Amino acid sequence: MLSSDADGLSSRGAAVEIADRPRREVTLADVARAAGVSKSTASKALRDKYGVGADTRTRVREVAEKLGFRPSAVARQLTAGRTGTVGILTNDLEGRFVIPILAGAEDALGAGELSVILCDARGDAIRERRHLRTLLERRIDGLIVVGGARTEPRPSLGRDLPLPVVYAYAPSADPEDVSVAADDRLGGLLAAEHLWSIGRRSIAYIGGDPTYDASRERAEGARAALAALGGELITAPMSAGSWTERWGRLATARLLDEQPGIDAFIAASDMLARAALDVLRDRRLRVPDDVAVMGFDNWPIIVTNTRPELTSVDLGLQELGRYAASRIFAALSGEEVAPGLDLRPVRVVVRDSTVRNDVAAD
Amino acid sequence: MLSSDADGLSSRGAAVEIADRPRREVTLADVARAAGVSKSTASKALRDKYGVGADTRTRVREVAEKLGFRPSAVARQLTAGRTGTVGILTNDLEGRFVIPILAGAEDALGAGELSVILCDARGDAIRERRHLRTLLERRIDGLIVVGGARTEPRPSLGRDLPLPVVYAYAPSADPEDVSVAADDRLGGLLAAEHLWSIGRRSIAYIGGDPTYDASRERAEGARAALAALGGELITAPMSAGSWTERWGRLATARLLDEQPGIDAFIAASDMLARAALDVLRDRRLRVPDDVAVMGFDNWPIIVTNTRPELTSVDLGLQELGRYAASRIFAALSGEEVAPGLDLRPVRVVVRDSTVRNDVAAD
Repeated sequence: MLSSDADGLSSRGAAVEIADRPRREVTLADVARAAGVSKSTASKALRDKYGVGADTRTRVREVAEKLGFRPSAVARQLTAGRTGTVGILTNDLEGRFVIPILAGAEDALGAGELSVILCDARGDAIRERRHLRTLLERRIDGLIVVGGARTEPRPSLGRDLPLPVVYAYAPSADPEDVSVAADDRLGGLLAAEHLWSIGRRSIAYIGGDPTYDASRERAEGARAALAALGGELITAPMSAGSWTERWGRLATARLLDEQPGIDAFIAASDMLARAALDVLRDRRLRVPDDVAVMGFDNWPIIVTNTRPELTSVDLGLQELGRYAASRIFAALSGEEVAPGLDLRPVRVVVRDSTVRNDVAAD
Repeated sequence: MLSSDADGLSSRGAAVEIADRPRREVTLADVARAAGVSKSTASKALRDKYGVGADTRTRVREVAEKLGFRPSAVARQLTAGRTGTVGILTNDLEGRFVIPILAGAEDALGAGELSVILCDARGDAIRERRHLRTLLERRIDGLIVVGGARTEPRPSLGRDLPLPVVYAYAPSADPEDVSVAADDRLGGLLAAEHLWSIGRRSIAYIGGDPTYDASRERAEGARAALAALGGELITAPMSAGSWTERWGRLATARLLDEQPGIDAFIAASDMLARAALDVLRDRRLRVPDDVAVMGFDNWPIIVTNTRPELTSVDLGLQELGRYAASRIFAALSGEEVAPGLDLRPVRVVVRDSTVRNDVAAD
């Protein structure tokens, strides 16, 4: 979702610009009038809602930026009489997943206009209940529950909470809750299509911990894409697996030994892809000429440091955070927010491990 | 600071245990009486304050744990009439540094007893002022300002803030502010001493971005340690440098070419150490037999995934967070908190890249 990311940046820039030169606050009505659309349409276009054409969305956003409209003004109107605080409850011990989601939510909420209370439950249910109690005592307006490494459905916090709750990254197990998550299956599908498009026909998959939904769904997506194209996904005949590089090296070595002719690997994480690169280097196989490699997560510190730099599926976590916050807003403004799981798009970011820079237009 | 980490874990465990079986709240006075010390000494011992002997500290903590004393009860007493919220203002885009510091502060504050508002200023001064305004409007009790990758002194938020402020990881440039940071120089010193103790005499340093204080201070510590031991630190004759693995590989290769006989590398980060490991592997040099390698940060996802696993200097970020929170408490309870920079200890965590597991007692 490159376009969403770019929007996030530009609206951030606009807010900063306005802060420097005070003037009459530009309203949503001003933007709607100038763009020639209804206030409802303008609001949808600015809040990434479906049901608005791409042209309209672009026009409204351009007008909003030109007029210096602060998206946070929407927030301020909505939060009259509220505490102006959204809570984020997380189990993410490392911050790898929650920090980009937090940044995205902040974009949607307006920096400095709404506060985010981050509570790290550290995978401990008692700690989570205690954090939840504290958050409710502080009368937050809404709550975003962010999963950690595991993306499978997590226990619901319950249906009787007195505020809008959105589960992000890991959905709630209760289909009556509102959940948003990255589309792992689509990620596997796009990965396989990318490798097929550059001529690879013997594509193998290196999974992580097989008890993780993410590892299975990424494989299923790749398998479905290859089946549609007339190919077949090569997988390891092993039920073991983990998210460590040690496992990634072992799996890569076994696949290369048992399936001669592999010309591409899809790894379920960037760490596992890095492990594959290390094994290929040890064996004097050239990447991407002999074997192409791609990972999942598009984690900057990994993908830009490998030899060569790593093609990866970006899960759009920042966009996920913005979208989760927009669901909270929608609920607060009285819109009906459909329950269930809303899968958000992902994208492939191409680097030298699949397409060498000197031959890519990209 | 192994002992502090262990304490953090045990007090966390104790708090959870108590939550399950309600009974009369154990007070600080109960703990002091049972340990045979004054309330003031008991409070200091529980809050990591200097001026209490190690024996007393251990005894008080054992008594506190036995009685099921919740450290957060101190917090509750202190926060009567307060908002019960400490703000964390950060520039750490990735969350690598702020998340462990946040976890440590939470330990000290008592999970669920006090809230932490995390604001990500993203290195943007206007955004930072706006966050600060919001935090003050929400009447937080104290503020911890957490630096990002850069550890050099940062601009002060000012002396006229109406609440206790502690700068953590990156100190304030104003010596009248209260700052706590990891002792990078000590880290370099301990690293060099460790390598010397295992018989290495040609120790080279791979720095990161040379404009970072952390990169320079780590080198200075190593240089001072080796000078005292009769050795000399080998450094690259280059003024360039960055925190990327590409740079780490280049620096390692040049040092090996220009200084034959190097038998150990200290790298200024785990990523740079990993780059050194990759180059040594390419050159068929054995680690640690031919060349020992160690890094800085003790970042789990790197140090446990390299071949071999990486010895590293742990900067004690979680302890730093606990200590910063304890400074806020001290100020709130009317204690005089000395201004200036308080450098906190660091430690070497030994793994296979310096001492092979089959020969180490560790």
